Amino acid sequence: KASGGNLVQQVESPKVETESLQKECDCLRKIVDKQQKKIDQLCSQVKSLEAEVVQEEGTGQALKEEAQRRENALEQLRLAVKELSVQNQDLIEKNLTLQEHLRQAQPTSLPSADT
Amino acid sequence: KASGGNLVQQVESPKVETESLQKECDCLRKIVDKQQKKIDQLCSQVKSLEAEVVQEEGTGQALKEEAQRRENALEQLRLAVKELSVQNQDLIEKNLTLQEHLRQAQPTSLPSADT
Repeated sequence: KASGGNLVQQVESPKVETESLQKECDCLRKIVDKQQKKIDQLCSQVKSLEAEVVQEEGTGQALKEEAQRRENALEQLRLAVKELSVQNQDLIEKNLTLQEHLRQAQPTSLPSADT
Repeated sequence: KASGGNLVQQVESPKVETESLQKECDCLRKIVDKQQKKIDQLCSQVKSLEAEVVQEEGTGQALKEEAQRRENALEQLRLAVKELSVQNQDLIEKNLTLQEHLRQAQPTSLPSADT
């Protein structure tokens, strides 16, 4: 298996191969470290974004509830305006009727006073 | 440098070491692949969450603008209710005055008719 010159080569080759593999391992270990840092940073970013989404959803929900309250208030005011308008109209007509009666009930005034 | 028995050892040791390093490299390469998949998955998750945040912010903004419009409408209706109430009150008082004048203008009625 071993002959003089070839034996030296056989001892040398594995040594070169070993060094080469050692370098590759070191390189791979550096990549693993770098990637782990990247993973940690991305995990942190994900947590932060998830919290942001929750916060924005909360804000949106609060705004929707507020919108519903305002809508109810608007509805009540619209009804109030309607009722007051009807009352107003009714009072105006009653006023006109009373004015007419008053005119008729004042017999001392000349007919031309109507103008 | 090389003697018979020790030479075999010297050829064997680097070979064992080489195999050991080879295994370590294989192992590290697997870790690198696994980490890369994790990084890709996290990057995708970050993109997705960023889009969600943008969407929620947009919804929130639209709701705020709607809230402002409703607030303006509420303000206008409150003013309308105020004005109509004032008009109503004014018409009610005018009505009472006219009724009083009418009562006074009907001289043929007996004093007791007031009750």
